[in-house]
Amino acid sequence: MKSPLVSIIMGSSSDASVMQAAADFLQSMDIPVEMRVVSAHRTPVQMIEFAQAAAGRGIQVIIAGAGGAAHLPGMVASVTHLPVIGVPVQSAKSMIGLDSLLSIVQMPAGIPVATMAVDGAQNAGILAARILALQNESLRSKLLQWQQALQEKALTQDKNLPNNS
Amino acid sequence: MKSPLVSIIMGSSSDASVMQAAADFLQSMDIPVEMRVVSAHRTPVQMIEFAQAAAGRGIQVIIAGAGGAAHLPGMVASVTHLPVIGVPVQSAKSMIGLDSLLSIVQMPAGIPVATMAVDGAQNAGILAARILALQNESLRSKLLQWQQALQEKALTQDKNLPNNS
Amino acid sequence: MKSPLVSIIMGSSSDASVMQAAADFLQSMDIPVEMRVVSAHRTPVQMIEFAQAAAGRGIQVIIAGAGGAAHLPGMVASVTHLPVIGVPVQSAKSMIGLDSLLSIVQMPAGIPVATMAVDGAQNAGILAARILALQNESLRSKLLQWQQALQEKALTQDKNLPNNS
Amino acid sequence: MKSPLVSIIMGSSSDASVMQAAADFLQSMDIPVEMRVVSAHRTPVQMIEFAQAAAGRGIQVIIAGAGGAAHLPGMVASVTHLPVIGVPVQSAKSMIGLDSLLSIVQMPAGIPVATMAVDGAQNAGILAARILALQNESLRSKLLQWQQALQEKALTQDKNLPNNS
Amino acid sequence: MKSPLVSIIMGSSSDASVMQAAADFLQSMDIPVEMRVVSAHRTPVQMIEFAQAAAGRGIQVIIAGAGGAAHLPGMVASVTHLPVIGVPVQSAKSMIGLDSLLSIVQMPAGIPVATMAVDGAQNAGILAARILALQNESLRSKLLQWQQALQEKALTQDKNLPNNS
Amino acid sequence: MKSPLVSIIMGSSSDASVMQAAADFLQSMDIPVEMRVVSAHRTPVQMIEFAQAAAGRGIQVIIAGAGGAAHLPGMVASVTHLPVIGVPVQSAKSMIGLDSLLSIVQMPAGIPVATMAVDGAQNAGILAARILALQNESLRSKLLQWQQALQEKALTQDKNLPNNS
Amino acid sequence: MKSPLVSIIMGSSSDASVMQAAADFLQSMDIPVEMRVVSAHRTPVQMIEFAQAAAGRGIQVIIAGAGGAAHLPGMVASVTHLPVIGVPVQSAKSMIGLDSLLSIVQMPAGIPVATMAVDGAQNAGILAARILALQNESLRSKLLQWQQALQEKALTQDKNLPNNS
Amino acid sequence: MKSPLVSIIMGSSSDASVMQAAADFLQSMDIPVEMRVVSAHRTPVQMIEFAQAAAGRGIQVIIAGAGGAAHLPGMVASVTHLPVIGVPVQSAKSMIGLDSLLSIVQMPAGIPVATMAVDGAQNAGILAARILALQNESLRSKLLQWQQALQEKALTQDKNLPNNS
Repeated sequence: MKSPLVSIIMGSSSDASVMQAAADFLQSMDIPVEMRVVSAHRTPVQMIEFAQAAAGRGIQVIIAGAGGAAHLPGMVASVTHLPVIGVPVQSAKSMIGLDSLLSIVQMPAGIPVATMAVDGAQNAGILAARILALQNESLRSKLLQWQQALQEKALTQDKNLPNNS
Repeated sequence: MKSPLVSIIMGSSSDASVMQAAADFLQSMDIPVEMRVVSAHRTPVQMIEFAQAAAGRGIQVIIAGAGGAAHLPGMVASVTHLPVIGVPVQSAKSMIGLDSLLSIVQMPAGIPVATMAVDGAQNAGILAARILALQNESLRSKLLQWQQALQEKALTQDKNLPNNS
Repeated sequence: MKSPLVSIIMGSSSDASVMQAAADFLQSMDIPVEMRVVSAHRTPVQMIEFAQAAAGRGIQVIIAGAGGAAHLPGMVASVTHLPVIGVPVQSAKSMIGLDSLLSIVQMPAGIPVATMAVDGAQNAGILAARILALQNESLRSKLLQWQQALQEKALTQDKNLPNNS
Repeated sequence: MKSPLVSIIMGSSSDASVMQAAADFLQSMDIPVEMRVVSAHRTPVQMIEFAQAAAGRGIQVIIAGAGGAAHLPGMVASVTHLPVIGVPVQSAKSMIGLDSLLSIVQMPAGIPVATMAVDGAQNAGILAARILALQNESLRSKLLQWQQALQEKALTQDKNLPNNS
Repeated sequence: MKSPLVSIIMGSSSDASVMQAAADFLQSMDIPVEMRVVSAHRTPVQMIEFAQAAAGRGIQVIIAGAGGAAHLPGMVASVTHLPVIGVPVQSAKSMIGLDSLLSIVQMPAGIPVATMAVDGAQNAGILAARILALQNESLRSKLLQWQQALQEKALTQDKNLPNNS
Repeated sequence: MKSPLVSIIMGSSSDASVMQAAADFLQSMDIPVEMRVVSAHRTPVQMIEFAQAAAGRGIQVIIAGAGGAAHLPGMVASVTHLPVIGVPVQSAKSMIGLDSLLSIVQMPAGIPVATMAVDGAQNAGILAARILALQNESLRSKLLQWQQALQEKALTQDKNLPNNS
Repeated sequence: MKSPLVSIIMGSSSDASVMQAAADFLQSMDIPVEMRVVSAHRTPVQMIEFAQAAAGRGIQVIIAGAGGAAHLPGMVASVTHLPVIGVPVQSAKSMIGLDSLLSIVQMPAGIPVATMAVDGAQNAGILAARILALQNESLRSKLLQWQQALQEKALTQDKNLPNNS
Repeated sequence: MKSPLVSIIMGSSSDASVMQAAADFLQSMDIPVEMRVVSAHRTPVQMIEFAQAAAGRGIQVIIAGAGGAAHLPGMVASVTHLPVIGVPVQSAKSMIGLDSLLSIVQMPAGIPVATMAVDGAQNAGILAARILALQNESLRSKLLQWQQALQEKALTQDKNLPNNS
């Protein structure tokens, strides 16, 4: 098995159903990934260690999903020099995801987190692939094919719509 | 000089003008405090060390102020068992303080942060004093006197208002 | 039966299902609690009496939950010198909890309320325990054990996650 | 001097500049008013006493202005059976008045507060006059004249606008 | 049958289930009411006529419920000198009632609307009763009894709560 | 079959159930329409081509529906001189439609989009008909009849309401 | 002087500085306009008369600007069959324009208002011109020239930017 | 002069003062950049051409800043396979940057934009550098030095704070 290039982390296993979409996309591009529960609030010391060690293990991009007062993406970005992609996960009943989104995107100058839409885990996977494709021509081709398929799907939807004219 | 009982920390010295109100109140109650710059994002490892060591140094309450995607109060609360009071500091131009507030108050189950109003540093000092007064009868008296003075001030404002009747 | 150290109050018995989580946590720490319906709007005079009498009855921390234009935590904090913890309870259909949250957290200078996340009653219990643990070494140990268990649970979640690598 | 029919109360003398507009309107209608500082948070007991006594003193309408976590209008409405009009006062820098507005308007079933726009103190005065005019035909005439003048002013503005046509 | 003192109007019969609570309360106080569909947007001319005629028909208070860009309460208030109470009705899926609330409460200087909480129709009825009670001592007694019953209910809830102590 | 005068476009066929209401209204007015999937993000080049060609094909009004970061209405308006009507479609779970609304309505100076309410597709159809009616007297008559029917429906609702008086 | 084709109305002459941008654009396109103060709240009857008469006077598009609880655009749209363009004007200090925006855009089904960005009066003028250009080829040419000039300006800005490369 | 690796684009030269911080950071890392005005709304065709050509010119990362209904970052991301970083620029008076933020971050599945904080242009530069550093060890060293300097600055701020203890 290949060593993972992208680490997909989340604060709790309850976020796994949302974050799986990132793994699915990356694996469809043959990019080896790992999925981990790393909690800023429950395992802060291990989170620091994880972030400090990630680059040395060959990880190139970290995708971090979290909800509510979501500190995981920003904290990990503070400890590594790798690009970190943040996915705001909508917590159960309150705040329509605005709490997660603002907690992740409004980072202070010095520590960037590449923030995705609320529950936008697939896009996190795509962005990671775009970053890795800068060094990988075959991945670039796959990405272009995928983007082409996205376009084809829209064109087919257009054809299949009862056009009413 | 007495060893500090309350540690007032902030992510940047630019927050000091807001956070000073916490120190002022506590010192007016003769409670020894320290003020520190401890940054979740710029000095994450030192922040962990600070939080791990705080109780052992005799600190009883931590007051943490931060703006934007404010991670300091929640992260410190994750590493200590001391009560942590969070002060959302309004960042310069955007988001009317809602980003700081939600980043601090919407903590997940397990790790509480006692959140104050936006820029509510004085109240953080008062809450710390209320907590310390549980073990300190003389402080309790001072707090009651202060609360009495607050009441007197309102009654005086009432008397001095041109009553229009 | 021991005299309660923490009083958990709410504006209506319909908030009890949310607020029970505070009682559950405190009782798991062997801290005696009481649960009360004390309504700022329906029983304002009794609320004042409750708050005036609380410290004298040996109560050390008050936890107050309320929804909508939530006045209970702030009003109680105005009458006592005890630390008051506020829990915004999300009302049925509207305003995503923002009304409760802002009504509790945006207290004016002079009267602090330690505000928790929307529906964050368990954290209110944990904060109360952290405050009481300042005077109680055995409680401190229990809290540390609990925090350790929280960490273990995250580490187990991490191990059990299908890692995809 | 006539006994006041409308009591205009506010949490702090710093709200007086906003609340004066209510008094000005009512006095222009020859309705006797009083202006008082009555603080829900600094003088809670006196606030209860004020609200309990208001009707007996001949007060018919209470106008209450407050900012931030604005509890004054709702608390006063809980203790009296008089109509209470609430004016959200915008606090200095944060939350664009949304905190005051939601703290006043989102009252639970049972205790109504007639909420005005943020800083809408003049309208509070007008509403009080509309209520009093139900029992006072001469006041009704004055109100109709005033509403007529408002209309005339709009028609004059229309005439004076460079019409560009 | 007695001539109605309170007119409860709404923009569409789909709002009737919310607005019924106002009628129910007023009828429980023996205050005669009418319920009407009067639409600012579908029947603007009739709305003007309704508002112009209301006082002459003996109506003393108008309660107007509307959702979305809710113009009915403010428009009616522009044409009458009667007190108008506005009830923001939450429209189906979007905007969490904020659109209705702001459309009703943020009236310009000159034309007040006494705004209730989102879907707060019962409180609209109570406020109308408080206004009418200024001229009706027997109604005042009923209102005080009702407020007393509200208090009793809270005290009973308190007694029935499993107190956990 | 007549050549379409109004083109109803959407970013994905999943928006068709919302956008159908625009087509239904226009067809009830005998205005020929087409419905198309044209995606700003999946088929950007085709979108430009669509917008460049629309006027030449006899299209007079473009109705564009989109959700989330909704770029379709604004982008199409940038390439054509035809009036473009934007319909914010509420995406599944998050942001209560505020993202779609602000992405469409807050256009910079120079490129207008006539923005409708969230999910307000029927109104988009009505506005298109109002625009076309400027050149079509028979359509004007139909619109007036329809507006009359809307009024009748409100008057009938009024009659059928149990009036409670 | 030519009879106006576009009527630009506003609730108060204080909105004229914002709304002037609509007139300026239209006049630069040689489209005759009028500017009027027509207040939904101060002159409701005249507003109805204005809207009823507009089409008969040869007006083809109405542009209506209003702030706060902005009822003017929607009310006018209820009385006419002409296209109505709404401009939310930001009121002085509160609510960041959200009150005006939602009061105008969230219209119920049946009555569309073509809503522009907050303070987006120039775009209202451009949209009116796009609508009129459907019947006026020479106006269409002018609009295309103007859009071309907008593009040239962007290209010039691009050339003049210190490119840093 | 070296060919640029990062293209910093913006919708208008008025955004240049905000976006300059991205260029400044990248140039301090010796990364060649270009700054361009590319407008989604004023030069849509050129924007498409720019995005299609970027990768071929050796650009590796695109940073796009825009305000209001900000379409530039998402549209460019739709046409290229390069990673695109979006910077919401706060427009003058309204919407506290929420319009720009949501217009950029809430992208649909398929097209990611790495969104920064409102006005967070420096972080966009840092993220671009982190991405480029994956292929450039010397850049990695510079980044680590910079992050170290950030830490030193925080530690110095801590030392220089009047500690009050």
